[in-house]
Amino acid sequence: MNKGNHGIKNITVVGTGVIGNGWIARFLANGFDVIAFDPAEGAKERTTKAIAQAWPSLEKLGLAEGAHQSRITFKETVEEAVRGADYIQENVPEREALKKAVLADIDKYAKPEAIIGSSTSGIVPSILQEGLKHPQRLIVAHPFNPVYILPLVELVGGKQTDAAIMEHARQFFQEIGMKPLIIQKEIEGHLADRLMEALWREALHMVNDGVATTEEVDAAIVYGAGLRWAQMGPFMTFHLAGGEKGMRHMLEQFGPALKLPWTKLEAPELTDELKEKVINGCESHAGDTTIAELETKRNEFLVELLDLVESYWPESKAAVKN
Amino acid sequence: MNKGNHGIKNITVVGTGVIGNGWIARFLANGFDVIAFDPAEGAKERTTKAIAQAWPSLEKLGLAEGAHQSRITFKETVEEAVRGADYIQENVPEREALKKAVLADIDKYAKPEAIIGSSTSGIVPSILQEGLKHPQRLIVAHPFNPVYILPLVELVGGKQTDAAIMEHARQFFQEIGMKPLIIQKEIEGHLADRLMEALWREALHMVNDGVATTEEVDAAIVYGAGLRWAQMGPFMTFHLAGGEKGMRHMLEQFGPALKLPWTKLEAPELTDELKEKVINGCESHAGDTTIAELETKRNEFLVELLDLVESYWPESKAAVKN
Repeated sequence: MNKGNHGIKNITVVGTGVIGNGWIARFLANGFDVIAFDPAEGAKERTTKAIAQAWPSLEKLGLAEGAHQSRITFKETVEEAVRGADYIQENVPEREALKKAVLADIDKYAKPEAIIGSSTSGIVPSILQEGLKHPQRLIVAHPFNPVYILPLVELVGGKQTDAAIMEHARQFFQEIGMKPLIIQKEIEGHLADRLMEALWREALHMVNDGVATTEEVDAAIVYGAGLRWAQMGPFMTFHLAGGEKGMRHMLEQFGPALKLPWTKLEAPELTDELKEKVINGCESHAGDTTIAELETKRNEFLVELLDLVESYWPESKAAVKN
Repeated sequence: MNKGNHGIKNITVVGTGVIGNGWIARFLANGFDVIAFDPAEGAKERTTKAIAQAWPSLEKLGLAEGAHQSRITFKETVEEAVRGADYIQENVPEREALKKAVLADIDKYAKPEAIIGSSTSGIVPSILQEGLKHPQRLIVAHPFNPVYILPLVELVGGKQTDAAIMEHARQFFQEIGMKPLIIQKEIEGHLADRLMEALWREALHMVNDGVATTEEVDAAIVYGAGLRWAQMGPFMTFHLAGGEKGMRHMLEQFGPALKLPWTKLEAPELTDELKEKVINGCESHAGDTTIAELETKRNEFLVELLDLVESYWPESKAAVKN
């Protein structure tokens, strides 16, 4: 490895729960040696098992030359673990004081030019870098489970983060098969988790209010929006639902619904400025492709996706045609 | 057709926008004759075009015997259109007064035993059936775009809806390749749109607050949660993200985040009762399948899905491995 000018060769993972182990599997599959630290009893065994569970998928996705499950070494202290690292991924439990203490330790023993990425799903980097000796090399690098398959990683810089560090991190994650998304403003929950959390909170309300069971909520996503969201996010989905006039028509038709108590979440005011942002965003994303062309592609994709879903989850197969 | 005891043979579609035309294409592909009504100029031509656009997908999904694009007839009045219908699908614009006026007209001219389904995405059926002569045959049958491919249809009964009518409708939709989901309580936005609307509102906030562009919001869904949601809803997804202890661990770890201002949506209180509902829901949904088995299946699915996404949307392809 090491194709960009980020200089990342030695990787350390601190904290080996579901997310930490997911990172380890991804790094190993990309041909890195990985050093790990986790004070919990049985951590090493759980990591070995998690790597083995992930490996068949990683083989299918394609292993880098020399990649091997065994290229992982556990160390007894943070100091030993981070000493030689060029990149350190922190994944300890989501408690601010704990994260800050562990990050201070990592910062103390890592070489000053090493990049530190935190997997935090909610805490902003400006808070995490407070009190570090070298705060400029701290970023949020927030992945999604399963980390070894899903490509998204949100990169967020804090007030003190060095722009060059962000760029090196972006290159690095792209090289290990990910889709790094640099978040423009640091906010609690970053971007993807805010979207998911909004849906999640409403889902909990639905269960709490007796509107649906958890299984019915899941079905309401899987057989509808979920199939669409595997290829298009909410904006492009609605752009296509608006017919030939796309998002412009959609906002005219369903904009007023934002005033209705359809969720427990208060919607923003649909000002002309916001409207134009949304419409222009969709139109520029679509580029020269017409709505009809996008529709054709979406349809062909959905048909194959449905086949795929049914082959894995036969219980989802709808009634046989007569 | 006509396999259940619902007696549905003749179908009428009133209102032929994107949703109405989607229904027409699905009904035609299932071997029905369809009668349509829409007072807008050029409606017939737009419908013909929409059916042609949908047809290749429907062919791939499998047409019923005798199914043909040409088996659609437009009528000049609601009276003529609904006279012989066993099932009438209403899809006029989402304005309560307009819907109620059109439904009253349909109710007046349709035979009393015909079932009337409204595609309304937000209005509850108890309101729509007010003032009808035969309110017991009015249900909400809310589909998702593209209606001819996505299997989900939400069925909602109002205070006056006959339970036998709901059951006939459920059988009918199942027979035409759909996943009918009967919603336990009528609320504005039913179930799926409430979930989507929560995400949509938060997405608008993100764009409005300058956190992300529409394209970045879409990427944050597509490359992360979207890939998961094509096979699992939010509950099962989190059940698997919780490691061996599943949802129980997930709620312990991320439950406290519900108190944080991560979204503009206020979360429900995570009472013991709600916790148990959620945990038991996931465990009973998983049944005898272990988390590890579910993980394996999920991974295999995701690998194939990623291949599929990349074959249709090559720009989504991540960096080539070295």
